[in-house]
Amino acid sequence: MLFPTGHRGAATPAPVVPSTGRLQPLGLDQVRITGGPWARRQEVNATATLAHIEHWLEREGWLANFDLAVTGGLAEGRRGREFSDSEVYKLLEAMAWELGRRPDAGLEHRFGAMVRRVAAAQEPDGYVGTRFGRPGQEPRYTDLEWGHELYCQGHLYQAAAARARTGRPGDLLVEVARRSADHVCATFGPDGNQGICGHAEVEVGLAELGRALAEPRYLAQAALFLDRRGYGVLADIEFGRSYYQDDVPVRDTEVFHGHAVRANYLAAGAVDVAVETGDEKLLDAVAGQWQRAQARRTYLTGGQGSHHQDEAFGDDWVLPPDRAYSETCASVGSVMVSWRLLLARGGAEYADAIERALTNVIATSPAHDGQSFFYANTLHQRVPAEDVATDEVSKRAEASLRAPWFEVSCCPPNVARTFASLAAYVATVDDGGVQLHQYAPAEIRATLPSGEQVALDVVTGYPVDGRVEVRVRAAPASGWTLTLRVPSWSPSARVRVDDGAVREVGPGAVQVAGPGAGGVVVLELDTVPRFVVPDPHIDAVRGCVAVQRGPEVLCLESVDLPAGRGVDDVVVDASVPPWEVDGTVYVRAGSLGAGADGRDGDGDDGNGWPYAASDAVVPRPRPDLRDVRLVPYHDWANRGPATMRVWLPTL
Amino acid sequence: MLFPTGHRGAATPAPVVPSTGRLQPLGLDQVRITGGPWARRQEVNATATLAHIEHWLEREGWLANFDLAVTGGLAEGRRGREFSDSEVYKLLEAMAWELGRRPDAGLEHRFGAMVRRVAAAQEPDGYVGTRFGRPGQEPRYTDLEWGHELYCQGHLYQAAAARARTGRPGDLLVEVARRSADHVCATFGPDGNQGICGHAEVEVGLAELGRALAEPRYLAQAALFLDRRGYGVLADIEFGRSYYQDDVPVRDTEVFHGHAVRANYLAAGAVDVAVETGDEKLLDAVAGQWQRAQARRTYLTGGQGSHHQDEAFGDDWVLPPDRAYSETCASVGSVMVSWRLLLARGGAEYADAIERALTNVIATSPAHDGQSFFYANTLHQRVPAEDVATDEVSKRAEASLRAPWFEVSCCPPNVARTFASLAAYVATVDDGGVQLHQYAPAEIRATLPSGEQVALDVVTGYPVDGRVEVRVRAAPASGWTLTLRVPSWSPSARVRVDDGAVREVGPGAVQVAGPGAGGVVVLELDTVPRFVVPDPHIDAVRGCVAVQRGPEVLCLESVDLPAGRGVDDVVVDASVPPWEVDGTVYVRAGSLGAGADGRDGDGDDGNGWPYAASDAVVPRPRPDLRDVRLVPYHDWANRGPATMRVWLPTL
Repeated sequence: MLFPTGHRGAATPAPVVPSTGRLQPLGLDQVRITGGPWARRQEVNATATLAHIEHWLEREGWLANFDLAVTGGLAEGRRGREFSDSEVYKLLEAMAWELGRRPDAGLEHRFGAMVRRVAAAQEPDGYVGTRFGRPGQEPRYTDLEWGHELYCQGHLYQAAAARARTGRPGDLLVEVARRSADHVCATFGPDGNQGICGHAEVEVGLAELGRALAEPRYLAQAALFLDRRGYGVLADIEFGRSYYQDDVPVRDTEVFHGHAVRANYLAAGAVDVAVETGDEKLLDAVAGQWQRAQARRTYLTGGQGSHHQDEAFGDDWVLPPDRAYSETCASVGSVMVSWRLLLARGGAEYADAIERALTNVIATSPAHDGQSFFYANTLHQRVPAEDVATDEVSKRAEASLRAPWFEVSCCPPNVARTFASLAAYVATVDDGGVQLHQYAPAEIRATLPSGEQVALDVVTGYPVDGRVEVRVRAAPASGWTLTLRVPSWSPSARVRVDDGAVREVGPGAVQVAGPGAGGVVVLELDTVPRFVVPDPHIDAVRGCVAVQRGPEVLCLESVDLPAGRGVDDVVVDASVPPWEVDGTVYVRAGSLGAGADGRDGDGDDGNGWPYAASDAVVPRPRPDLRDVRLVPYHDWANRGPATMRVWLPTL
Repeated sequence: MLFPTGHRGAATPAPVVPSTGRLQPLGLDQVRITGGPWARRQEVNATATLAHIEHWLEREGWLANFDLAVTGGLAEGRRGREFSDSEVYKLLEAMAWELGRRPDAGLEHRFGAMVRRVAAAQEPDGYVGTRFGRPGQEPRYTDLEWGHELYCQGHLYQAAAARARTGRPGDLLVEVARRSADHVCATFGPDGNQGICGHAEVEVGLAELGRALAEPRYLAQAALFLDRRGYGVLADIEFGRSYYQDDVPVRDTEVFHGHAVRANYLAAGAVDVAVETGDEKLLDAVAGQWQRAQARRTYLTGGQGSHHQDEAFGDDWVLPPDRAYSETCASVGSVMVSWRLLLARGGAEYADAIERALTNVIATSPAHDGQSFFYANTLHQRVPAEDVATDEVSKRAEASLRAPWFEVSCCPPNVARTFASLAAYVATVDDGGVQLHQYAPAEIRATLPSGEQVALDVVTGYPVDGRVEVRVRAAPASGWTLTLRVPSWSPSARVRVDDGAVREVGPGAVQVAGPGAGGVVVLELDTVPRFVVPDPHIDAVRGCVAVQRGPEVLCLESVDLPAGRGVDDVVVDASVPPWEVDGTVYVRAGSLGAGADGRDGDGDDGNGWPYAASDAVVPRPRPDLRDVRLVPYHDWANRGPATMRVWLPTL
């Protein structure tokens, strides 16, 4: 059994490697997902999604933009939106992680060829970007509100950090990023341009590149961008400065607000800066914002953002399921924030949030074949979404339909880079031992800070089966501690070490004395399907229940109803708990009757004024549907156009 | 007592004068509102709003654009959005109706001066518009999707029709409109440009101008525009062609959809064309669309449009109160449609809808001083809206705050023209007699088609008092019929003629034999405040009640709660009916408790994950608020920043 050498910082092949913090990340060389749904997702990502994205980047000319930067003609010939470069960088990051996960000569070749095209477009002073500054284009940094120049370079840095940490510190991509970052520091430094980017990202990118290359100047520049923001540096716009979090300094903000992706990316960068500068106040501020956003501005799925208009968080408690925006990228961003807070502070609630967003949003975005994607993730589809041809670019990113590509196509490569690096979120170490945060069949070969080594094999049918068996292959003679997350969704849990007594444990982080080699720890979580009720402040789903099984949110899809019945006709009998037969979950249901009006079951045509005096005949739903099948939300819309709802009204 | 001569068509001083139909409109010379809330609205409109709008049109340079068209420099100097000309025309229409209602030399002078500036900008071929076609501007009609050139000229035609019918058929404005309409017919005729305008309006404008000037070519052109629409004539856009109703021909449409103002304006034009061409199929189609939109896509207030993103109708049953868009102009458009359908077919449901929209949306838009306006009309304000300085143009039309002016300022002049012509919606005549549709203190001096004359004085404290007394001043010797609308909101009603027996009557149109001169008809409607419950298909307000008194929707405003209590903390005890004391309505209420979480009343800080297993402790609202005051929705936000809600959760 091979162990990587213990390492922290530059060389750990993981997306986030803070120099300090409560927990230490493990790299892709230390954790391998060996089976179960996540292994399948990684396989589809590697074999289908990466090539799919590369194909569309070529087809839409977003890669060719870099060639035009060399040959000339960008002003006339450039294609794609102002931020299209970033999709190339996110694909490169995804490829870098995939190559770190499992070397592949063909992928390595494609990666190198793409990097050379990007490198060729870099200007002598280090600037990289195809939208500004060339002959016939507006000068660089003349539209910080919408230009996305720093945003794009930030994604370049995350890709380079991935490459540097997966054993290629001298790689061309890393050099391109280094020269770009030096250019940004020179241009936006203390005495330079005092601007910031309308879309946060360069902060988190600079921080990670700075960590990967041990370059404190990059971290200092990230801190500078953060400190400048929130004072009206950017222009006021229709949506207000809150849209790009330039209304209040991040350290004075009470809750995530404005554009949901921007808000999460900014918070991730703020945690990085807080951790590296030891700024506990800033860390407290972001942790508080995270907490309130989770409590009042997050969907049951973990999705965030309830405004279609500005892709933004709504006010507290504004969580309409049928107008949920819940952008896939916002959940990628929320995982970035939760993971950083987990590393900095520990706390099972952060791992709970990561599991929720991964299981119910990020895993929902791609179709089973990994070649079409939800951009927005509604919780209630009232009319079957139009199909998008497999060769068509969708104009309607927000329409809650899966499409192979979008005019704004941020989500597909964001999903790809997350799946490729998924193993990094499974476990961490600290001086005392190993912490298991996410459950999947896995091999963990961890080196503790002490230099001692722990080898664990995780065997489980999770998430459908709540039994998690941790087999110890190697452990320090001196003893160690295994910390297991008991998810908040599990009403009860039991843990047993070797043949020891069974211990009842509550939600949170449960510690057990780690057994020696050959030992076994068994955690049993309660994955019986159950009804979930919303906080009464969430007006949009009052009087409804949802069904959850383990971490999976379930939904009703019209293809599982008798012909002619729509999901909006269904009313659940909440007095009968949901039950499971051969892995399929059912609820007892009735219907409002054909009568759209619903006040009576007599087939009212639903064309009357829909507001009646309260003494009008009350609804008498008919118990005529009986057993209705539910499916995991992340599986929906894989069986043709359908209507769907997560929240079900009760009798 | 003076009677106008009986007339139908060109000369009736009313906004809509079809050449045929079930009912005939009465002009502003035949109906005068003499007191009550509508008279007050008309007074504020005349004395404050018209001048306010004129001031802002000057200040923002939207009037000066017409001067620049003459002096040159439009390309560089033009200000305002592409449709700013239309706000000038809507103000001219409002002034024309106001002058028809009550001549005023000063207003007449201002009107004439403004018209001369518009006339000076008209091009030799009749085209009027400041945004296209001048040196340095794009050529005319090169952006039919967004250019609004035909939309603007359509508003010019409505203004001209108002002027022609209020005794000034030879007025300069009428000549300008005639030449513009001739230009449009020449340009977009059967063998001309086959395009349509991205924003319907020219159809209804051409139809009304055609009627006012007895010019069938204009009606034919309106019919042409209608028949072209719905076949993808306009470009596909992010929102889809449904946004401007170019996805399906209007005669094949099942329900209003897309942009709510566009949808209503288009439907109004369609009714005009259907009536004038005797196209019953088209009339049936629009009536069906109206019916379904009222049943499934209209707020309790009569407001329409639940998408902020594209100002559009949502799918059936998508009516979130806190994200209601309910644009003021959409309700102006809905009154246009309902009134046309009422004239064409009769039917109290159309008058019900007009009363609802006038009382609860159009009257809600302007502040009491008539100098600031809601553009969007939310039914649930969760955070107090920022104040807009009285000298500031609001960028945030959709933010549900009243502002003196907006970058897109369609609503203020739309409200002004509606208020100025309000008397036209009170009553109609047919061969048999007079129909009363809206109730207000009024003098009605109608000439029946037979040439016989009916004079009525309406005496009432409506809407707070449900007693309506109709005093007959003059009536045909041959007998006549008085038709009274019994609104659908009145659970019961009684009518008495002279000293005759009291008759119980149900909702709808109630006919009584009209008494002779000196006779009295008394209608008693039930305006006791009552709870209203929503159709169970409207997910967003499940488990809530609203309170209505007569036609007025009431709301809870935070300024009426104990200090520190927000509207979202209130829970109503629906077992206690609302009651009224000295004209003020109260409900019995409790609270969720300081605990934002609400699952317990123990002051939970509301920062926990808001979705719990259904066996978690259920909410125990505290009956600690007792009597909570409600106010008419149209009065809200006149007492400083506040939160507000119409739909109240029940214990």
